[in-house]
Amino acid sequence: MFKEIYENVQHTTPLVHSITNYVTVNDCANIVLAAGGSPIMADGIEEVAEINSICDALVINIGTLNERVIESMIKAGKKANEIGNPVILDPVAVGASQFRNEVTFKLLKEIQFSVIRGNASEIKTIYEGSGTTSGVDANEEDKVEEKSLDNMITLCKNLSKETGAIIVLTGAIDIVASEKNANIIYNGHSLMSKVTGTGCMLTNVIGTYCGANKNNILDSTSIAVAHMGLAGEVAFKKLQKADGGTSSYRMFLIDEISKMNYKKLKEGANIENR
Amino acid sequence: MFKEIYENVQHTTPLVHSITNYVTVNDCANIVLAAGGSPIMADGIEEVAEINSICDALVINIGTLNERVIESMIKAGKKANEIGNPVILDPVAVGASQFRNEVTFKLLKEIQFSVIRGNASEIKTIYEGSGTTSGVDANEEDKVEEKSLDNMITLCKNLSKETGAIIVLTGAIDIVASEKNANIIYNGHSLMSKVTGTGCMLTNVIGTYCGANKNNILDSTSIAVAHMGLAGEVAFKKLQKADGGTSSYRMFLIDEISKMNYKKLKEGANIENR
Amino acid sequence: MFKEIYENVQHTTPLVHSITNYVTVNDCANIVLAAGGSPIMADGIEEVAEINSICDALVINIGTLNERVIESMIKAGKKANEIGNPVILDPVAVGASQFRNEVTFKLLKEIQFSVIRGNASEIKTIYEGSGTTSGVDANEEDKVEEKSLDNMITLCKNLSKETGAIIVLTGAIDIVASEKNANIIYNGHSLMSKVTGTGCMLTNVIGTYCGANKNNILDSTSIAVAHMGLAGEVAFKKLQKADGGTSSYRMFLIDEISKMNYKKLKEGANIENR
Repeated sequence: MFKEIYENVQHTTPLVHSITNYVTVNDCANIVLAAGGSPIMADGIEEVAEINSICDALVINIGTLNERVIESMIKAGKKANEIGNPVILDPVAVGASQFRNEVTFKLLKEIQFSVIRGNASEIKTIYEGSGTTSGVDANEEDKVEEKSLDNMITLCKNLSKETGAIIVLTGAIDIVASEKNANIIYNGHSLMSKVTGTGCMLTNVIGTYCGANKNNILDSTSIAVAHMGLAGEVAFKKLQKADGGTSSYRMFLIDEISKMNYKKLKEGANIENR
Repeated sequence: MFKEIYENVQHTTPLVHSITNYVTVNDCANIVLAAGGSPIMADGIEEVAEINSICDALVINIGTLNERVIESMIKAGKKANEIGNPVILDPVAVGASQFRNEVTFKLLKEIQFSVIRGNASEIKTIYEGSGTTSGVDANEEDKVEEKSLDNMITLCKNLSKETGAIIVLTGAIDIVASEKNANIIYNGHSLMSKVTGTGCMLTNVIGTYCGANKNNILDSTSIAVAHMGLAGEVAFKKLQKADGGTSSYRMFLIDEISKMNYKKLKEGANIENR
Repeated sequence: MFKEIYENVQHTTPLVHSITNYVTVNDCANIVLAAGGSPIMADGIEEVAEINSICDALVINIGTLNERVIESMIKAGKKANEIGNPVILDPVAVGASQFRNEVTFKLLKEIQFSVIRGNASEIKTIYEGSGTTSGVDANEEDKVEEKSLDNMITLCKNLSKETGAIIVLTGAIDIVASEKNANIIYNGHSLMSKVTGTGCMLTNVIGTYCGANKNNILDSTSIAVAHMGLAGEVAFKKLQKADGGTSSYRMFLIDEISKMNYKKLKEGANIENR
């Protein structure tokens, strides 16, 4: 199944529609291409439904919100729901403002998401209906480590039950949870947090995988998370040889997404089912 | 003339005004600098005409359309027409939505373009007045190969006659056509399609060349296309040595645009007149 | 004090709120991370005040202005003033349009800035209340060289007195001036002008330093300017070895920001007090 999921992406070139922030949008488009998909970024209310109708997945990212784009998100999301395409939510910095909270809960009410991906602060904010997020990175006390892992898995499973979406909580350890199952992914490297948008990029890789595997969202998402994390590990090894900094790391990361193949991914993916 | 066109860019540092999408805008600005120009991105309705009046060329790209920016495009385009500056259109993904079609035909009606650059699906959509574009990349059946080349050249010449603009159709082989002449450019590398915005970037390189050579749009555009394609070829050789992926390729591509000189370009340009 | 300023950045991870243009926003976010801060880009009028209230500094950049975002700038600026956070202005291409002039003077009236950073044309435009800026780069006749340095220092000191802000005039030589003091920074490399947004990026590095050193804006800003300039010098050496172009240079520049440490910065900073 792992192989089938991977090859579906490579053989079908899923078209991923992103309504996203203008900070990391270029990296998001490039990582969709690198992962084997084809990106289209369109947020005009006049066209989002029509654009979405030719796509295989929709990614909604609230990084730089404004009124205009919220309507477009809802319109595109409803269309994707209607035609049965997966919709992935990246609730960037939810908890950091009332506005982000309101928009996030509005989106959750209007759209049925297939996947919600966030860091611990963001996922907790959604779970608790309010939050204490301070910025776009997870709060120190929210970071997922071995000791807090069980609690976080339970939280993710509960939130999956509530929302009907697969929950992805990313951090030092990544959790991908349905109501009843959780995959724990141990790939990745801490330097990824020093590149802006690695979370947004991952969400788009998830969109790419889910767009090509609409009937297997839990496993597709888990493999997407492993693909990203493994690329981050290999990129770090390249970085050390190159004596580079965070910008080289960003490049190596996208490079390794594009240089992945089934054998490398299967061998390197560190996924544990709980 | 080749030499004069190249050197006009290097010696006059043309100021290129772009109203463009937020996905690839940074690469577009950097490639204008790399090619020898100076970029300015401004799309506020309050200032586009004034900004344009100090520039040498205008590039209009419809990648991420919204109502606000359409008015700015028209206002800037009319100003550029008034002062005799070249205006270059990049009709990204026209055919993918009614909205993009309407906006494109409105722009074509309101503004006299000097150059229109698109992939085969986009150019055919404009030629036929409607289309079947599925996304931002050319449809499989639209790709330009040797066998379909003659038909495509005829289409481009006809569209040039209709619009009064030089038509640039880019793909595995690139066509630059006026009503009566066509230059076929055999430079480039297929990996360019795995980097988002190489089309947008080329359109800005064309803007840079045309801004410095307002009276010779056909040849300036052809040399710009060769400059981009040759950079893509050299970048691919560097990529193989570096064992990199698509993000390294993006960097090498812009690098080679900036490292071009007359001798390399003259020797490497593979332009055939038909 | 140099050491304290540097270490305050590294130890407190200042949260920098940027309302900025969509051209260089990604590089700005990445350079804040590279310099030791944490970036948040948010410009929705509904949330800018609240977002700002959890941050340590605010950077306002007028690169791609529109009506919507001006209100957000003012609202965020007033909030930052209220809570005593430093506000840094980057008046990109002021002088190139009446609109930019009006907005800049409106911002200067409504918000108390801690720092204003621009090239010679931009700073002169603000000083003179009107200008002749042609584009985003400094006019040839405005460039700061040794012979014009004394005049420029005087201009900066006068403008600092008028505005109450530290004035940063960047060019071949950089000036950081309060009403009574000026630090002249001789770091940097001319190739930085061939990468879009190095000015914007510097403004964000300044925001990062000031956010961690709210009571020492003059020296923090000077060290930030040296950090950026020194990174540009080291990056140029790497570029020569790598035989790269302008895009490699952009990467090496951000790399070197992230690879800086106190010892390298202290030894390499070339700051002269006048």
